[in-house]
Amino acid sequence: MAHINLQNEFPGIRGPMMFRPETAKPLNELVDVLLRGSHSLSPGERELIATYVSARNDCRYCQTIHGAIAAHHLDGNEELVSHVKYDPETAGISSKLKALLAIAGKVQQSGKDVSVDDVKRARAEGATDLEIHDTVLIAAVFCMCNRYVDGLATWAPDDPDFYRQRAALVVTNGYVSSTLTGAVAK
Amino acid sequence: MAHINLQNEFPGIRGPMMFRPETAKPLNELVDVLLRGSHSLSPGERELIATYVSARNDCRYCQTIHGAIAAHHLDGNEELVSHVKYDPETAGISSKLKALLAIAGKVQQSGKDVSVDDVKRARAEGATDLEIHDTVLIAAVFCMCNRYVDGLATWAPDDPDFYRQRAALVVTNGYVSSTLTGAVAK
Repeated sequence: MAHINLQNEFPGIRGPMMFRPETAKPLNELVDVLLRGSHSLSPGERELIATYVSARNDCRYCQTIHGAIAAHHLDGNEELVSHVKYDPETAGISSKLKALLAIAGKVQQSGKDVSVDDVKRARAEGATDLEIHDTVLIAAVFCMCNRYVDGLATWAPDDPDFYRQRAALVVTNGYVSSTLTGAVAK
Repeated sequence: MAHINLQNEFPGIRGPMMFRPETAKPLNELVDVLLRGSHSLSPGERELIATYVSARNDCRYCQTIHGAIAAHHLDGNEELVSHVKYDPETAGISSKLKALLAIAGKVQQSGKDVSVDDVKRARAEGATDLEIHDTVLIAAVFCMCNRYVDGLATWAPDDPDFYRQRAALVVTNGYVSSTLTGAVAK
């Protein structure tokens, strides 16, 4: 049971977002820009960063829903998503994404842990300043979302199909529309 | 020197925000709603939560600017802000705010650390569901901001007067206007 009366039964971050739509609106706008906006990193790659950080924070709802969204973007390859969560360095992803995930893993611990060498490695693999910036910000944003979800003790469904179906909705409609619009909020 | 070329010399979070205004807009809108919107916790109390979390994350820029903003709201009482940063339980603040800061301190470590007893204590001191929700979200948001600022190795001015002057601007104009509008961005 959640720590407060959320006045709704939506799972994960959607419970507190429906409880407090004034803060949910800019939160979802931020995630839409970061994960779905026009970018040199694909939406699947950016969702993998979100999933990896959420797994490292042990946030069940966030790692499962963003893992499902990443898999949806990556031809349904749930095995790849699982591999990235637990051992990105040996996963079938680009060397650039491995270097960016290493930065994200540092940010998950503390921003101060990101070293000049971490950034050098990403650059050597072809990462741009914008890609490094957005990796740091995505990792930071999910350190926020994970704490928001778990700090209020929200619930998370067990059925993997729940997340797959929700992922398809989010990929089609985006975060703002899928979360705050009644038509696709169920 | 920052890890990437931010193409500007603004300190702290303002450097990456000017570099990436698309993400800065919803970020500042979120902080304006959370810290300045109409609320049963005063802006000073909410800024103290932001300052306390930033101090626990050892983020020099964030704890200093939000500490200065908190002090500006609290009749310039910088000593109280300093006391809250390092030992809130003995500071001259309400028992309710002490209980909320205890929750914020848990969120700073991990959302999972917030216990039923932490929430019970806050309720016993008169905290509402909205106040507990916003405390969790403020703490989570500053875990994001601190990682964003330090993960990119931005710089922080040494002069306390820089932060006092900036605080006065933010209190008057709000976060969106003070950060993204040229007229008050210097």
